[in-house]
Amino acid sequence: MSTDDSTNPIEAMRETIEAEIPDELEISRVTFEGPELVIYTETPQKFAEQDGLVPRLASSVRKRITVRPAPGTQVRERDAEAQIRSLIPEEAGIENLRFYPGTGEVVIEAEKPGMVIGNRGSTLREIQREVGWTAEVLRTPPMESSTVDNVRNFLIQERDERREFLERVGERIHREQQEETDWVRVTTLGCCREVGRASFILSTPETRILIDCGDKPGAEGEVPYLQVPEANPIPDLDAVVLTHAHLDHSALLPLLFKYGFDGPIYTTQATRDLMGLLQLDYLDVAAKEGRSPPYESEMVRKELKHTIPVEYGDVTDIAPDVKLTMHNAGHILGSAVSHFHIGNGFHNVVFSGDIHYKDTRLFNGASNDFPRAETLVMESTYGKRDDYQTDQEDSERKLTELVNETYEEGGKVVIPAFAVGRSQELMLVLEEAMREGRIPTMPVYLDGMIREATAIHTAYPEFLRDGLRERILHEDENPFLADQFQQVDGGEEMREDIADGEECIILSTSGMVTGGPIMSWLRLLGGDPENTLLFVGYQAQGTLGRRIQSGRREIPFSDRGSRSEQMTLRFDVESVSGFSGHADRNGLEDFVGTMSPRPEEVLCVHGDETATDQLSSALYQELNVRTHAPRNLETFRFD
Amino acid sequence: MSTDDSTNPIEAMRETIEAEIPDELEISRVTFEGPELVIYTETPQKFAEQDGLVPRLASSVRKRITVRPAPGTQVRERDAEAQIRSLIPEEAGIENLRFYPGTGEVVIEAEKPGMVIGNRGSTLREIQREVGWTAEVLRTPPMESSTVDNVRNFLIQERDERREFLERVGERIHREQQEETDWVRVTTLGCCREVGRASFILSTPETRILIDCGDKPGAEGEVPYLQVPEANPIPDLDAVVLTHAHLDHSALLPLLFKYGFDGPIYTTQATRDLMGLLQLDYLDVAAKEGRSPPYESEMVRKELKHTIPVEYGDVTDIAPDVKLTMHNAGHILGSAVSHFHIGNGFHNVVFSGDIHYKDTRLFNGASNDFPRAETLVMESTYGKRDDYQTDQEDSERKLTELVNETYEEGGKVVIPAFAVGRSQELMLVLEEAMREGRIPTMPVYLDGMIREATAIHTAYPEFLRDGLRERILHEDENPFLADQFQQVDGGEEMREDIADGEECIILSTSGMVTGGPIMSWLRLLGGDPENTLLFVGYQAQGTLGRRIQSGRREIPFSDRGSRSEQMTLRFDVESVSGFSGHADRNGLEDFVGTMSPRPEEVLCVHGDETATDQLSSALYQELNVRTHAPRNLETFRFD
Repeated sequence: MSTDDSTNPIEAMRETIEAEIPDELEISRVTFEGPELVIYTETPQKFAEQDGLVPRLASSVRKRITVRPAPGTQVRERDAEAQIRSLIPEEAGIENLRFYPGTGEVVIEAEKPGMVIGNRGSTLREIQREVGWTAEVLRTPPMESSTVDNVRNFLIQERDERREFLERVGERIHREQQEETDWVRVTTLGCCREVGRASFILSTPETRILIDCGDKPGAEGEVPYLQVPEANPIPDLDAVVLTHAHLDHSALLPLLFKYGFDGPIYTTQATRDLMGLLQLDYLDVAAKEGRSPPYESEMVRKELKHTIPVEYGDVTDIAPDVKLTMHNAGHILGSAVSHFHIGNGFHNVVFSGDIHYKDTRLFNGASNDFPRAETLVMESTYGKRDDYQTDQEDSERKLTELVNETYEEGGKVVIPAFAVGRSQELMLVLEEAMREGRIPTMPVYLDGMIREATAIHTAYPEFLRDGLRERILHEDENPFLADQFQQVDGGEEMREDIADGEECIILSTSGMVTGGPIMSWLRLLGGDPENTLLFVGYQAQGTLGRRIQSGRREIPFSDRGSRSEQMTLRFDVESVSGFSGHADRNGLEDFVGTMSPRPEEVLCVHGDETATDQLSSALYQELNVRTHAPRNLETFRFD
Repeated sequence: MSTDDSTNPIEAMRETIEAEIPDELEISRVTFEGPELVIYTETPQKFAEQDGLVPRLASSVRKRITVRPAPGTQVRERDAEAQIRSLIPEEAGIENLRFYPGTGEVVIEAEKPGMVIGNRGSTLREIQREVGWTAEVLRTPPMESSTVDNVRNFLIQERDERREFLERVGERIHREQQEETDWVRVTTLGCCREVGRASFILSTPETRILIDCGDKPGAEGEVPYLQVPEANPIPDLDAVVLTHAHLDHSALLPLLFKYGFDGPIYTTQATRDLMGLLQLDYLDVAAKEGRSPPYESEMVRKELKHTIPVEYGDVTDIAPDVKLTMHNAGHILGSAVSHFHIGNGFHNVVFSGDIHYKDTRLFNGASNDFPRAETLVMESTYGKRDDYQTDQEDSERKLTELVNETYEEGGKVVIPAFAVGRSQELMLVLEEAMREGRIPTMPVYLDGMIREATAIHTAYPEFLRDGLRERILHEDENPFLADQFQQVDGGEEMREDIADGEECIILSTSGMVTGGPIMSWLRLLGGDPENTLLFVGYQAQGTLGRRIQSGRREIPFSDRGSRSEQMTLRFDVESVSGFSGHADRNGLEDFVGTMSPRPEEVLCVHGDETATDQLSSALYQELNVRTHAPRNLETFRFD
């Protein structure tokens, strides 16, 4: 599909743009930064006066466009700052203004970004018109988050280097296509007939993209098959796409940089921050357990610097023949169903990632509406014939009953939970139940990174369910700030005090009992039959969580020293199914059954062998689509 | 599966051998030549006296073993020649004796190799005992074959270089295994949902093997997908295995050497010679048609030099974790069902190649009996629901009827046929029918390489069906030497004379009417309704043969010059199905159904989309095995 003339694509873009804009607007430079087209203008104020011009240009060149003032064309910083502050309403709560003369940008951090942006961007355009600077807006999270702060500060510090990176990526994306798009392949590097180590290669004759790169909970040595030929050479990958931040999808992304990868990672902004949090914790846990992790924290920083955030619904060029669009997946904050449009209408592949199909307290249900979609790579965590979860109302009733029973016996409820996702859902349930008097008000201790993960949720309320978003932005209604939520920040001593103290609820990581503070809680509370251990999320094969859930009560314990001892669990072990972040069997079938358009072929992945087999058979029989339950290390070819 | 100590494998072999042989035998050197272990001894005569020693050693080191005299330990050449001649009966018909002092070998070419070898090798051992030289025996073909002569002479000339090559391959095969065998993959590079460009990669963590590399008749530009990552880098392939010589399996093998491959090709000796013949003709046809072929004849020579012949039933190490065993496939001379034993009992894959399941006049039916076999990659040429062929008797009756009818009308019968396989089968049928008076005795003209291909058959009678083998070795009974068979060796002029002459039968290449002398026959005889065009073999999609068979009568003709003209065929077009070299639908089902052991998983390849789909469904339903109808460019993983 090479074009006839050998015009530089950037020159072609510039010509199109020059032809469309009024004569009085002057363009000094046009460049790509990642998927985005950046126009530098000598006349930024005049540009801003042209209402609707930028969207019109964007639609004719089919690119996202940013207009920036050419150096030297703006009002001086000090004057600009005063003018900007005067243009923005006080209630916006400006925390910070940072000017970047190199690109003519000003970053405005505010409590209420909407008020900085104005109706359809009117205030931003006004700023540009008045002072010439291009404004970018960040939200100050209503709960302080060290992760969000650190990531932002780090990216600010690396801003120049990052711009060079983006220009390099931009050139690569917009290179002239060398190979005709006459096939599409999907290679399974992990998470087939198993849960864990999600990883795929999507390839065309021109392009190779890695999707996810996770670890396997309970089997840390089993990493994705990155050594297969389809994934190599790693440094030549065009792009990496991350569907969500959970470690079974993200843990090994930093490793790619150790292998020499130097390209972009596309994901949502929320996922970027969450993955940083979880990966650093992953290194921390490994170190504490005496394992040597496969990469160092330096690689996490490198990865953050290489991440290009995309928004739900935005069509983003990530290679000459591939466009990516991410959609809400309903699973955790920032989780994305990822749609790849390949070739010019040649083929479309959707990777579901992990999904929740129904609305939950935290998120709207997963999107399954696409312009076109022939192939679907579909999660199958709860794909077994009988994997039905009770509905939300019943689940909440069962949860409150269990809490009440345990409370009445003077016991404590311990809930192993992923820091990201299930914890926040439970916090919402518990907060409401206490507020409405359905369970007694008592302390809910958050152990592990739950509080920090919750703060990240408040930094990106646009990813949350309508309604919840509004509540979070009003401090007095923010359910996550309720008094009963208390961070366990005093180490073992504090845990011992809590264990010796009054009735309470404890939410603790890790969610599959594979390490982390939950191990202390088992030791401290597991021996007492009055207490309850309550599973609310999926327990993968090979994890201690799954073994306990399946009835095992003798568990090994490594003493503080190196010796290992056994302990017998005597507390009550319960499971409530309705709080999973995953669609149940019904939800999975509904996602595919109501998907628009209906896919022609479905690969059922990310589930135990029985789950992928049974879901695959069911979808074939009910929907009459071609289905597969792939093994790891297989490659499928489409069209 | 690395061994504990880092002993050189060759040293370990030598130690085992030294421990097993009597003290008076002296070993000067042990080396690998390809898969074979070569022992040089200072005491060759004494070695030869130890009856049964070599087989015993072979079984304890699990290698094929050749014993050669150390340089200087043998009787001088002139004396040795006299002694050898005196040891071999006159009737053996010795044609030639060649001595190779470098390896202490003598190559004896004789009309009756069996008489040189003696009962269970007794004469060979006697030769070694008397003169110290190790004898190798070649058959002088009863019909002179320039191909067999050329290949042999070329290999004699390259003997020293070839020994270096074999030693290099030997070291590679017997390297210490680095990667544990925990998976096996099969990648489809061609011939999936199509007939043509057969090619597969079989890979393990340690090893990559290419199986077949053919062209696509009727679509010469569509070559195997050698560019996929699983096949690269080509020079690092451990081995190439060729199932049979037809161009849709072999045409592009020489290309590998252009891409830098320098390793071994394993196939039968008959296939080696036939592929050389067909590939050189392939280059010739391309040149005549003004196409530039992808490689030069030099690459065919390189390929021959890199070919290591294997015999049916011999278990051959071709990589640290792969053993190859070839079995009769019944399709053409030397064709092989190829069995791969991977890891130490880890997995077994059978590639059927092209097969004929029932006995034909030429060959015994395909073997389907293996020690173990979990996965079968199965041809599906006649896999469609209604792809039944009439049985041999009915087919022969129909053929003789058509010949008689055409003869009675004063017409000529033109039969497009593959030079290799179908032509010889038809020659046997026609010779018998004429001998028994079922059709009139008339000339049968052989055009293209049919005579040469037939001569190659007589050089390797051990590949032919019992009974036929014996007849060929007695000149007066050799059916291929019957008077009525006449070679077309006078070019267009001779063809015109034949066309203007008496009733006759013409067998001409190419078998799918994609070029070659058959094009002249269409032009010369196609216009006359008294003549008959008779299809006896499979006509692939996209070939002119298929189009004519499907009813097309207006066909394009390039005039001798460059202009193209149309011509209308008016002769009778008939098909007789029972002479195909391929199993019909029944035969395919029987091959799998009676296969021992029953495979667990079958990939149906080498057939049109309908054929592979329908065979795949049928095998699944009838035999309850997992089946697939792969696309090209897919990779399957086993165990």
